[in-house]
Amino acid sequence: MKFELSNNFKERLKVEIENQNVKFIKSAFHEVSHVDVAELLYEFNSLESKYVLDNIGLETSSKIISELDDDTRENFLKIYSSYEIADVLKIIDSDDGADILLDLSSEIREEVLINIDDKIKSKNLRDLIKYDDEVAGGLMAKELVKCNIDWKIKQCIDLIRKQAKNVSQIYSVYVTDSKGTLMGKVSLKDIIISKDNSKVKDIYDDFVVSVDANMNQEEVAQIMQKYDLTVLPVVNKRKKLIGRITIDDVVDVITESAEEERQIMSGITTDVEEDDSIWKLSNARLPWLVIGILGGLFGAFFLGSFESNYFEENEVFISLSFFIPLIMATAGNVGIQSSSIVIQTLSTPSPFEISVAERLTKVILVSILNGIVLSILVYSGLMLFDYLNFLDFEIYSKTAKIVSVSLFSIVLVSSLLGTLTPIVLNKLKFNPALASGPFITTTNDLMALAIYFIVAIAMGGI
Amino acid sequence: MKFELSNNFKERLKVEIENQNVKFIKSAFHEVSHVDVAELLYEFNSLESKYVLDNIGLETSSKIISELDDDTRENFLKIYSSYEIADVLKIIDSDDGADILLDLSSEIREEVLINIDDKIKSKNLRDLIKYDDEVAGGLMAKELVKCNIDWKIKQCIDLIRKQAKNVSQIYSVYVTDSKGTLMGKVSLKDIIISKDNSKVKDIYDDFVVSVDANMNQEEVAQIMQKYDLTVLPVVNKRKKLIGRITIDDVVDVITESAEEERQIMSGITTDVEEDDSIWKLSNARLPWLVIGILGGLFGAFFLGSFESNYFEENEVFISLSFFIPLIMATAGNVGIQSSSIVIQTLSTPSPFEISVAERLTKVILVSILNGIVLSILVYSGLMLFDYLNFLDFEIYSKTAKIVSVSLFSIVLVSSLLGTLTPIVLNKLKFNPALASGPFITTTNDLMALAIYFIVAIAMGGI
Repeated sequence: MKFELSNNFKERLKVEIENQNVKFIKSAFHEVSHVDVAELLYEFNSLESKYVLDNIGLETSSKIISELDDDTRENFLKIYSSYEIADVLKIIDSDDGADILLDLSSEIREEVLINIDDKIKSKNLRDLIKYDDEVAGGLMAKELVKCNIDWKIKQCIDLIRKQAKNVSQIYSVYVTDSKGTLMGKVSLKDIIISKDNSKVKDIYDDFVVSVDANMNQEEVAQIMQKYDLTVLPVVNKRKKLIGRITIDDVVDVITESAEEERQIMSGITTDVEEDDSIWKLSNARLPWLVIGILGGLFGAFFLGSFESNYFEENEVFISLSFFIPLIMATAGNVGIQSSSIVIQTLSTPSPFEISVAERLTKVILVSILNGIVLSILVYSGLMLFDYLNFLDFEIYSKTAKIVSVSLFSIVLVSSLLGTLTPIVLNKLKFNPALASGPFITTTNDLMALAIYFIVAIAMGGI
Repeated sequence: MKFELSNNFKERLKVEIENQNVKFIKSAFHEVSHVDVAELLYEFNSLESKYVLDNIGLETSSKIISELDDDTRENFLKIYSSYEIADVLKIIDSDDGADILLDLSSEIREEVLINIDDKIKSKNLRDLIKYDDEVAGGLMAKELVKCNIDWKIKQCIDLIRKQAKNVSQIYSVYVTDSKGTLMGKVSLKDIIISKDNSKVKDIYDDFVVSVDANMNQEEVAQIMQKYDLTVLPVVNKRKKLIGRITIDDVVDVITESAEEERQIMSGITTDVEEDDSIWKLSNARLPWLVIGILGGLFGAFFLGSFESNYFEENEVFISLSFFIPLIMATAGNVGIQSSSIVIQTLSTPSPFEISVAERLTKVILVSILNGIVLSILVYSGLMLFDYLNFLDFEIYSKTAKIVSVSLFSIVLVSSLLGTLTPIVLNKLKFNPALASGPFITTTNDLMALAIYFIVAIAMGGI
């Protein structure tokens, strides 16, 4: 039975693990991508998975371990000895190795590092674990091929030959001066088509985009995306080449920040997935729900206070209350539309920025346009209701006027709030996507209610 | 004055273009990435931009044109003759060339293709424009280096040398049999470290992930991301190698679908940006706002019909109406949280899927937990209001009970709706993100109102 990501194969494998059928495991996993094996192993427990990995060779099993997601791996490696972890780290790239080390307790981490006999490797790993997770240094690997600007191409080729075992995939050969300062790059293509005697100096490309090790990972992603790079060299403060970031890690950054944004927009507080525990799922949802409820209680209090003052004497108040859902829903929709457009601009900053004044002028014009259309729509709708005698209660023309005028004001105010909130959040270093989530919805709800009743009082309705 | 993405440089360049200062332009744009020039040119009109491009060499200016976004480029190329466009297409990769051709009218497209004297290039372009924008064929380029499995390494190197001019960046050399069927790949690293006499057969890697030209671009993106690929070969139905897709194009696909998702979630109907016209921005927002208003009018009608039946005789109805904002806001929040979690799972499909029954059981348990917490919170809040005599109106203990019980039911129903809607939309081939947008909010609002009053009647409140 050949390897296949299917329930059938999964069941068969479970049986063969129980039977300790090493032959089956070895043949079934022959010529299978480690990525697919990792995906399969999510369906097994740690002991079963380790039994498989122990029987398919250290090279493949190390790659599989580096492929697992953080939570699964952290849990899985609990049944590994520090010797075994050290063996894995010797094989995989240093960026993945550093990620694994950072998930271990500091005690085991030290044991693992001591057990790595390759001195350069363990020094590299020690360097990398110092960096914050969120910066270029936390994404980079130490494995790269660099050659001196004064070398001949033949020397480069010899170096590549020597380093070939350590560097799984060579993207570019970097060119440095004798102090290690990054000067440029040579593509493998140019190395292949050059004569052995040519000098690096004569064929290298001195235009190379690099980033500082402390640059934020979102900025790194923007740069790699903007310049269409598959690999990006990382330098320290003195411009010395210290590592490289590959596009696959940046793609993960892009995907994760899109996911994070969606979660924030949906009012989910921590990174959860559908297969998390009920407790965790519930906890991630409650905070914003509670804030929504508190906002709602405040709204009820607000409405109640109007009733006590105005209700007994004025029947318009009752018909006005029927339009609360309409007013609130529109305020919410307008606010989220506005913030979403600003967030999009903020996520791809331009050197020629739009000034806040320009932005607001535009927002005001758009919302005046939308406000007029919506107000006319509502006014005509109410007149139609009245004309058709659709509703048993008297629709006063006053109600229709109050609803239209306040709808117009609310479209305007919600647009402004929706535009300014992400700009302010961004300035304060919060994720601007917060402005498209329940935060703005709750604020908007209360603001809309207040405007609605202020307009009503001003127009003499209640 | 050196090139810099700043307002100062922009102003200076404007002046120098007016003065036709070719010397300034040539020296300022020397050794500048075409990506940065493209970004600068967004600030200029077509004639000014063309003046710059005409003076910085065809190689660079062609790359700049391929870098512009579709709308800007389509507009910009209107002042180019078909000869000039043909010159650009000769230089840039065929995937970018095909994108440019597809934006031209069919008449001009034909003129351009006739003016490309490189027969292979024009045939490649004709092949590519046949593919839909949204599939692998629409992302792929024809430029690639392939060698026969029976060749010696030396033959490969000669081929690379010959093709070096046409292929801007070589990622991998593909190995095919004599019929052109994709057999595997050889990395440039392995070519460099092998002896010239070795055979391709002996060093090539026969594990190669490829996709069919008609595969959807989102699936292509998932595969490249899953297997950490920088380049992906594309084959036709008979497994013949016909092109390759590079990761930079896939990164754009990932970013665009994240943006599209955010727009759908925010109730914006077409792809707009902050610098679009007021008219376009307004138009993109109106449809969902109008639907929200219609929902709101329906809600008012619904509430009004209750009033005529129950209001005169029953004061609980009035105090219940104060909690409409709370009920609606919670329904909205819960619905969006639920759909967001499902959408996340749907966007990374697993071979071992969660069954709908499992999903629903979990959703029900989570919402019972949340529902209980929120109901207790509201009930205590209302009792506290009552105790403190905070509100002038009588808070009946009946109101508190009705609000809590309906809140609980609404949390349950909104969760189920929020979970099922994206699954159903996905089955119907709609974008499941629709279920996190105003669509679900409007439905939820009305559903919540209905449940609220049904519970009230059932509990004898009104």
